Amino acid sequence: MRPSQRLTNQLRDIHITRHYTKHAEGSVLIRCGDTHVICTASIEDKVPGFLKGKNQGWLTAEYGMLPRSTSTRMDREAARGKQSGRTQEIQRLIGRSLRAAVDLNALGERTLHIDCDVIQADGGTRTASISGAFVAAHDAINTLLQKGALTVNPIRDFVAAISVGIYQGEPVLDLDYAEDAACDTDMNVVMTGTGGMIEVQGTAEGAAYNRAELNAMLDLAEHGIQQIVALQRAALAG
Amino acid sequence: MRPSQRLTNQLRDIHITRHYTKHAEGSVLIRCGDTHVICTASIEDKVPGFLKGKNQGWLTAEYGMLPRSTSTRMDREAARGKQSGRTQEIQRLIGRSLRAAVDLNALGERTLHIDCDVIQADGGTRTASISGAFVAAHDAINTLLQKGALTVNPIRDFVAAISVGIYQGEPVLDLDYAEDAACDTDMNVVMTGTGGMIEVQGTAEGAAYNRAELNAMLDLAEHGIQQIVALQRAALAG
Amino acid sequence: MRPSQRLTNQLRDIHITRHYTKHAEGSVLIRCGDTHVICTASIEDKVPGFLKGKNQGWLTAEYGMLPRSTSTRMDREAARGKQSGRTQEIQRLIGRSLRAAVDLNALGERTLHIDCDVIQADGGTRTASISGAFVAAHDAINTLLQKGALTVNPIRDFVAAISVGIYQGEPVLDLDYAEDAACDTDMNVVMTGTGGMIEVQGTAEGAAYNRAELNAMLDLAEHGIQQIVALQRAALAG
Amino acid sequence: MRPSQRLTNQLRDIHITRHYTKHAEGSVLIRCGDTHVICTASIEDKVPGFLKGKNQGWLTAEYGMLPRSTSTRMDREAARGKQSGRTQEIQRLIGRSLRAAVDLNALGERTLHIDCDVIQADGGTRTASISGAFVAAHDAINTLLQKGALTVNPIRDFVAAISVGIYQGEPVLDLDYAEDAACDTDMNVVMTGTGGMIEVQGTAEGAAYNRAELNAMLDLAEHGIQQIVALQRAALAG
Amino acid sequence: MRPSQRLTNQLRDIHITRHYTKHAEGSVLIRCGDTHVICTASIEDKVPGFLKGKNQGWLTAEYGMLPRSTSTRMDREAARGKQSGRTQEIQRLIGRSLRAAVDLNALGERTLHIDCDVIQADGGTRTASISGAFVAAHDAINTLLQKGALTVNPIRDFVAAISVGIYQGEPVLDLDYAEDAACDTDMNVVMTGTGGMIEVQGTAEGAAYNRAELNAMLDLAEHGIQQIVALQRAALAG
Amino acid sequence: MRPSQRLTNQLRDIHITRHYTKHAEGSVLIRCGDTHVICTASIEDKVPGFLKGKNQGWLTAEYGMLPRSTSTRMDREAARGKQSGRTQEIQRLIGRSLRAAVDLNALGERTLHIDCDVIQADGGTRTASISGAFVAAHDAINTLLQKGALTVNPIRDFVAAISVGIYQGEPVLDLDYAEDAACDTDMNVVMTGTGGMIEVQGTAEGAAYNRAELNAMLDLAEHGIQQIVALQRAALAG
Repeated sequence: MRPSQRLTNQLRDIHITRHYTKHAEGSVLIRCGDTHVICTASIEDKVPGFLKGKNQGWLTAEYGMLPRSTSTRMDREAARGKQSGRTQEIQRLIGRSLRAAVDLNALGERTLHIDCDVIQADGGTRTASISGAFVAAHDAINTLLQKGALTVNPIRDFVAAISVGIYQGEPVLDLDYAEDAACDTDMNVVMTGTGGMIEVQGTAEGAAYNRAELNAMLDLAEHGIQQIVALQRAALAG
Repeated sequence: MRPSQRLTNQLRDIHITRHYTKHAEGSVLIRCGDTHVICTASIEDKVPGFLKGKNQGWLTAEYGMLPRSTSTRMDREAARGKQSGRTQEIQRLIGRSLRAAVDLNALGERTLHIDCDVIQADGGTRTASISGAFVAAHDAINTLLQKGALTVNPIRDFVAAISVGIYQGEPVLDLDYAEDAACDTDMNVVMTGTGGMIEVQGTAEGAAYNRAELNAMLDLAEHGIQQIVALQRAALAG
Repeated sequence: MRPSQRLTNQLRDIHITRHYTKHAEGSVLIRCGDTHVICTASIEDKVPGFLKGKNQGWLTAEYGMLPRSTSTRMDREAARGKQSGRTQEIQRLIGRSLRAAVDLNALGERTLHIDCDVIQADGGTRTASISGAFVAAHDAINTLLQKGALTVNPIRDFVAAISVGIYQGEPVLDLDYAEDAACDTDMNVVMTGTGGMIEVQGTAEGAAYNRAELNAMLDLAEHGIQQIVALQRAALAG
Repeated sequence: MRPSQRLTNQLRDIHITRHYTKHAEGSVLIRCGDTHVICTASIEDKVPGFLKGKNQGWLTAEYGMLPRSTSTRMDREAARGKQSGRTQEIQRLIGRSLRAAVDLNALGERTLHIDCDVIQADGGTRTASISGAFVAAHDAINTLLQKGALTVNPIRDFVAAISVGIYQGEPVLDLDYAEDAACDTDMNVVMTGTGGMIEVQGTAEGAAYNRAELNAMLDLAEHGIQQIVALQRAALAG
Repeated sequence: MRPSQRLTNQLRDIHITRHYTKHAEGSVLIRCGDTHVICTASIEDKVPGFLKGKNQGWLTAEYGMLPRSTSTRMDREAARGKQSGRTQEIQRLIGRSLRAAVDLNALGERTLHIDCDVIQADGGTRTASISGAFVAAHDAINTLLQKGALTVNPIRDFVAAISVGIYQGEPVLDLDYAEDAACDTDMNVVMTGTGGMIEVQGTAEGAAYNRAELNAMLDLAEHGIQQIVALQRAALAG
Repeated sequence: MRPSQRLTNQLRDIHITRHYTKHAEGSVLIRCGDTHVICTASIEDKVPGFLKGKNQGWLTAEYGMLPRSTSTRMDREAARGKQSGRTQEIQRLIGRSLRAAVDLNALGERTLHIDCDVIQADGGTRTASISGAFVAAHDAINTLLQKGALTVNPIRDFVAAISVGIYQGEPVLDLDYAEDAACDTDMNVVMTGTGGMIEVQGTAEGAAYNRAELNAMLDLAEHGIQQIVALQRAALAG
């Protein structure tokens, strides 16, 4: 029934490549099917003005898409002179989700800059960004631990994300673009490695949904996120 | 236990004043406790470029806060030259929520512009905006029906919204600013008058939340939204 | 002869509501006929860079119109990304006029931010803003006197404003929108409570005007401003 | 008494050089003492959208200052990415003043673009701009008459401008920078060649002014403008 | 002598991967040592306004760097709201260079959008962009030929680019970042496959250079570009 | 053969007027035929952030064109809200070229701001800007030497610039607009007074050029720049 022939509870193939580029403290290429995102984590030894002198760190995220990551070319946001509302909404979500994974007090007066740049899009770019950025952030923080700049690990838990939706009346896991463009409801779920919910964003694109559908989608999301966390663990162990 | 002494499932007093300003086709002042928002609905007899010639309408929303609607003065977005990510996120939510209430095909080649301007803020400005904007949109569409520009009512259902959260470990309905600033989880819920879910956005600000807490919050939201829809109905009948 | 049936020297009904919103140190709703403006005065305990260390204060003003305060919806300046020339011209006028009322040396190193937001427009929004903002500024300064932050009152005199014009060949007081759109000459006058002139801005929209007409307009303005100052005094005494 | 030793009713030396640059249809260098402004008038064979198909023309003005036209270097507005409020206020004044001189219906569907660029500033740049721009506009319109594109001259009257003020308690004509920076009141007056008033903008910088002072300033302005119109006539005859 | 131990006339290893992403008509990853750039070519079936109806095509280029493509993180241009002067200079160079390779008349009323996005930088990003973008453009044009939209190939010649410089007194080919940051002169050369010069940009960063040095650098560039063209041919044949 | 009847190796008449405006430390009007540029050099007693505390100076340049310096009116960059890529490219070139002439260490913690504003354009505005700006910078630095703020002259050498090109198959010196618009190759050359090359930028607009043509163009440029340096010397001695 799904355009990709996947089962309703089946993720796309996910590959996490660490150390993808050489300059960033953490640099990951995450590929979820045909959605490919470069996630980097950069450490800066200062914090924004509103945190100065408070002896705590900060984590912030930015998101972008290469103009031709999509099937028709989009305008380049740098050339247009502003980020779209969608872009800002996504980068705020990524930042919020990752901050839930990191004890900012234990980070010291540092900023972790997350950059998620989509080089090829096929649905689910924001959730792929979160799952990949967690690994990049983990690697970046490890560089601080390894050189002794930190003695306590500020990572509190794993964080991963996935989309679910109602496609042709059926709850399905991990929407690709063909499904996303046609589905009734689209929900993004961010969870911790121990199963806590960090963010649930469910939007009825067409008909409204009910509690039973909501629960079915959350079950699928939980199932998918457990698998993604396992892949993150494997990548970090690799 | 709540700073306002309200019960955990108790809304603030809500007042909906129609025809608040004289120029707009729909104009509502909604007051939810100390949160006051002017919601107007304006009809324009054309649609954005991407819909031209498709024989359907559009609904779009913008949101703003007066600089001193808050306890400390915020920069004026018009003077700073751009809308914040928060503003864009909110106005996208308002637009999406209201579009779920309106059959855009039945609207004809018209745009309904929703403007929500917060004149006093005490938490819950985005949900108050949605609940008030629905009434303004309803009034604006009635002007089209009354003058015969439309013969079929494009309003499909009522739409209202409320925030819920986990405050000091307890699920509570309709967070005011004092609660919002201190709560662990903040969830905005948008539902139809017949109980369908349009949007659920739950964010763990501190600790992650679990399914039981999510369900408790949704129960509270459903309870609150039923009351708000009754107030919308009463206002429109008034 | 006037669309509103007013006498040539007759003001519209003016109502000044203090403490209109709860957060600002001074908050006024001024209604001049169908022109309604929210004026707030906010105190900030610092001054702009060019005044730092000079032991004096500053007063600055911003002005905006809600998109549907007018008979057809205007673009939202925050969304368009810049304030129009008209907006900037008006907010510069408001700031200049109010600074004439306040001894900035006596204010200490503080900034008084005036915000004038038009929620319904029917001509004369800039003069209503000045008259209302004076009361808001007065209230804000009183909070400083009451808590002992200031011992000498920096308010030097009252300030109020009104428009006059030549409508169908006749000098008239307090133009509403119907008159403003059709008049030959439009003049805004700002005066002190003791009758000094702070600002005179007269523009021939159609035919040029002569000295006799200028004098007739100034006489009307003086007459009107005396009444507005009386209303300001009554509001502040109330 | 005046820093320049001029009499209270004495203009600075004014020189008007036509055909100053070669590309513009009208191009004038006006020098009022040490204030030097290049004024060009450019003809474009179309009108802005709001006038399309109305069979009338338009005139619009832009104003700028070279960064080092002033005693300390100002930021370049093009580099900063926006025009200041002062710039916008001035260019709106120039446009309004010149439109009073031109019958836009007689101009046909054309736009006259006025550009006033200050290359050296010593006070009175906006009034010098208006007086110079009139001559440039006159020349540009003459090119249309000469090649038969127009048969009726749309110029209705001459337009010139000057500043006056109260300097050390005394009304004086044509403020230079030293006087402008120190004066109590600064008034810009725009008049037609036949003595009608187009614009009067008087601002109390320090103490308020009274009607007698206003009248004295207007008398000076009228006296000065008559001389400037004579210089414009002489230049155009030259 | 070179930090990389390369000979003075030795290129870094260059790899050209075609069909790197799936949506663009041409998509290339070019790696020149540690400089990695994604170059896409997108076909749009219209031309900019200034070419409308002229029966010819257009080619334009945009350039960007991922924020952490460099050793310290750069601000994201989309977030800052404008492209730097350097970015604009580079994208103008890329566009000009590629236009020299394409007969725009033979392209028809189409625009070829070139996007060069640096994912890892180690010097020479602009020349790598040009060399990679040529292959992407070639692929994009082939899709037009293959589906019969074009019958004559508008590609006139190959185009490739390389940097040369004076490093520690010695002319060297293909500067990496360590050399670029320390060299006296940096020259970018763009040539056709048949040895014609399209662009020479030589800048003395420290001491001025003389004609002999210029000639030595051009010899090196010619030598390098011949090799790059051979690699482009091999990639396109592959 | 040339539209202007000049010999292939003949410059246009060049006039350099020092002290052109009164406020800037250095102020030059340079006229190269019908290309007229005002070049000012302004001294500011501080440096940009990235140089603070490094005990060295900085030189930076900005460039602009009056809207009607050209044969059809261009948009005003300040009104459009951004500088074009061409403008930024040119001002970067001017800054780089002038920095090659000045020992920034000997300048002390000061910034030399160069402003080049084209008041009439007929080709070669960027090279005229460089040649004129050098004289303005020289004058500005002399004011520092004369008042004893500097004891060692930071000027290392003269700097001048000229364009050359291939026009109708022939190398020619100093392209005017008619030649520039029609030439095959356009090259800008910046050299020191002692014959060192600072910048060579050669662009094939149509056909590619070869080494022999490049050499012929450089010979012409060298010949022209020697004459311009002689004119600079004469102006500075005058």
